[in-house]
Order: sequence, then C-alpha cells, then structure tokens
Amino acid sequence: MLPNQMVKSLIGKVIRVEMKGEESDLVGRLEGVDDYMNLHLSNAMEYKNGEKVRNLGTIVLRGNNIIIIQPYEEHV
Amino acid sequence: MLPNQMVKSLIGKVIRVEMKGEESDLVGRLEGVDDYMNLHLSNAMEYKNGEKVRNLGTIVLRGNNIIIIQPYEEHV
Amino acid sequence: MLPNQMVKSLIGKVIRVEMKGEESDLVGRLEGVDDYMNLHLSNAMEYKNGEKVRNLGTIVLRGNNIIIIQPYEEHV
Amino acid sequence: MLPNQMVKSLIGKVIRVEMKGEESDLVGRLEGVDDYMNLHLSNAMEYKNGEKVRNLGTIVLRGNNIIIIQPYEEHV
Amino acid sequence: MLPNQMVKSLIGKVIRVEMKGEESDLVGRLEGVDDYMNLHLSNAMEYKNGEKVRNLGTIVLRGNNIIIIQPYEEHV
Amino acid sequence: MLPNQMVKSLIGKVIRVEMKGEESDLVGRLEGVDDYMNLHLSNAMEYKNGEKVRNLGTIVLRGNNIIIIQPYEEHV
Repeated sequence: MLPNQMVKSLIGKVIRVEMKGEESDLVGRLEGVDDYMNLHLSNAMEYKNGEKVRNLGTIVLRGNNIIIIQPYEEHV
Repeated sequence: MLPNQMVKSLIGKVIRVEMKGEESDLVGRLEGVDDYMNLHLSNAMEYKNGEKVRNLGTIVLRGNNIIIIQPYEEHV
Repeated sequence: MLPNQMVKSLIGKVIRVEMKGEESDLVGRLEGVDDYMNLHLSNAMEYKNGEKVRNLGTIVLRGNNIIIIQPYEEHV
Repeated sequence: MLPNQMVKSLIGKVIRVEMKGEESDLVGRLEGVDDYMNLHLSNAMEYKNGEKVRNLGTIVLRGNNIIIIQPYEEHV
Repeated sequence: MLPNQMVKSLIGKVIRVEMKGEESDLVGRLEGVDDYMNLHLSNAMEYKNGEKVRNLGTIVLRGNNIIIIQPYEEHV
Repeated sequence: MLPNQMVKSLIGKVIRVEMKGEESDLVGRLEGVDDYMNLHLSNAMEYKNGEKVRNLGTIVLRGNNIIIIQPYEEHV
C-alpha cells in the first residue's frame, strides 16, 4: 500500500506522530490528511517518555516536518 | 476536515504557532494563509514557557518551518 | 539505476532507514513508496548502535526527512 | 491579506528576517521577493541580541529557511 | 554548467557527499541521480575525519538533505 | 531585482555561501545556478571565522540548504 493510502486509512483512528526537532510525541484522532501529509488531529495530547504532558485539543501538523506516523494501538 | 481548510477556518481568530528550531511560541491573529501554510499574523507576540516575551506586531511565518498550528483558546 | 527505481526494487524486502535528527535507525519490510520517497514499512523496529530498542509495527516515514535508505542485508 | 502579498508590500522598505539555525537576525532593504519567499536584500546587516554585528551588503536569502519576516519599524 | 548537469556528468565516478546533520561523509560510485538530486551510490563507505568508518554497500541518499556533492578525486 | 536574477547576475564571479548546519562558509566562483538555487562552484574553498580551512575544488551545493548567498567582494 502506498504511504499516503496507509495514512488515509487511519482517518477516524488515533495515531502517534513524531515531529522533527520535538522531544515529545503527539497522539490524537486523525480528522484529515492531504497530499503533503499535513495532518488535522482532534483531542491531541503531548506525550514525553510515554507519559502524558498536556492536552492540545485541535491541532494541525505540517507534513514536511513529520518524521513518523503510526497507528497508536500498534505499539502499546 | 482537511488540514488547510482547518487553518483557513481560523482566519480572524487568534492562533498559536510552534516553529522549527524556536524555543518560543508565536501567538497572533491570523490574517491570511496560502496553500503552503505560510501565515500572515497581526498583533503577534512571542511566548516562552507560557509567559509573554515581546510584541512582534505584523509578521509572516514561512509554512515549511511550522511544526504545529492551534486555535489559541483551546489550550488555555 | 535511478534512485527511485532502486528504492522501488526493494519493495517486499527489509530495509534500513536513517531519518534526520533521529539517533536510532529504522528497520522494516518496505510495503510501499511514492515519488516523494515517503515509505510505508511493516514490522518496523528501532535500532540504536546495532541493538534493537523497540518494535514499532506499521509506520509511515516522511520522505523529505530521510537521509539514507539501504537494503538491510547488505551492511550486516 | 495573503502572506506573499504582505511580503511584496514591503518591497523598498527595511525588514527583519530570522533564518533557521542562525542566532543572529538579518535587517536590510527588501529589493525583491519571489513565490518561494526567496528574498533579495540590500544594505543588509547582521544583528545579535539587538546589536549590529557586521555589514553584509547585498544578500540573497533562501525562502525555505526563513522563519519570520517582519517590517523593521514595527518592533523597534 | 548547471548544477544538475554537473552531477549527472559524475555518473560512474566516485563522489563525496555531505548530508545534513551527519558528522561523517559518504563516498561511493554514483549510479544514478534524478531531478531532486536524489542519489544512488554503490560501494558506499562512511568516512569520519578522513578515516573510513564502515562499508555501506548500495545506498540511496535523499536529495533535499544533501549539503555538498563533490568529485572524490578532486579534494584528495 | 528578483532573488534568482540577482544570483544569476553573479555567474562568473566569486560568491560566499552559508549552508544550513555548517559552521564554515564556502567561497568559490559561481559556474551555474538553477531555479532551485542549486549552485555549481569552481575553485571552492572552506572558510571558518574568516580563515581558509581547505580547498574543495569543484562542488555542487543543494539549493534548499542554502541560508545566504553573497557577492564575495562586498563584505571584505
């Protein structure tokens, strides 16, 4: 499956995202994604070393600064 | 909702932006956004650890160096 | 052979990927790749100094943050 | 106003630019800008913590490494 | 000569490549290059401070993370 | 003058280039430039704190990792 199809298949599900130059991960429900892999998440939370740091609510993440996208359930 | 639509829906509202390689956040009123997520903010302020550092006034932020865009009210 | 053809020839095989700003490598089975070199890996694992750190399962890696892609067998 | 229009409206004026991975700011007269936000400045000077470090004269700044563009008068 | 033509003229020859955020250089035979300067190298080796660190074999390097490309013979 | 026109006007002349994440500057004769600001330099030399570190000869610099381009004579 192509990477973009894989990400689109996660819409409506909770994903984990690692951003470039960030120490913490972002976990949230994927609401939308475009061809640049810009992401729209709801109920987003910041995690550091596996612990929840804070609630971010609705966020938009810029695609070109994403390192890894992962379905959240898989790595628990 | 697509990420770009989400950001466009915030025009006229106050947003918080994390930029790559910056320790401080930027908070300001979103005046305009284009397809690259370049942002035009007015009344922009720099925040560090939740405290206001300085007024920046009108600024333009380069889209590809944005990490997170967030409606400002949500995370207060 | 063009770089993209080289990467496409690795679909179905295990590859090693170095990402920008990451200390650890990612090793996994290449499921799909697009023209931006975004990668879809299955059974991905994180390696640090040659030792396995953790299982990541299914991941998507953003192409523009990739440094090196390599067939995994070659450098063992 | 769109970000690019905002920047184009500053042609002929003095602007301040923060570049990625640079500790100092650049201040100069905006001579030209293109759709990638590449900038052509004249009489450019390097500033560090509000103090002038050196004259750079004519410079070209690569758009994708820009963090912030700002009219210089605004934040004095 | 245009930069891309210059790089294409090096196909079949040994080149040295500096990547962003890497301390070591990569040296290998250029097998292919595309318009994004993605590179396909064979017999690639990692060098640090002029000393060979390890063999990498066949690798693909992502063009947008390249800093410098250089014919290898030139700087010996 | 547009940024790209400015750079093209420097073909045949010696320029100074600051690259992202590099401590040293590159100085060389501009042989060619394309629309991405990829640069082809001849007789390139590496400078650190104003002192020549080493000769690099012919090099190609990737445009998106350029911070500043400057005619060399101007800042001497």
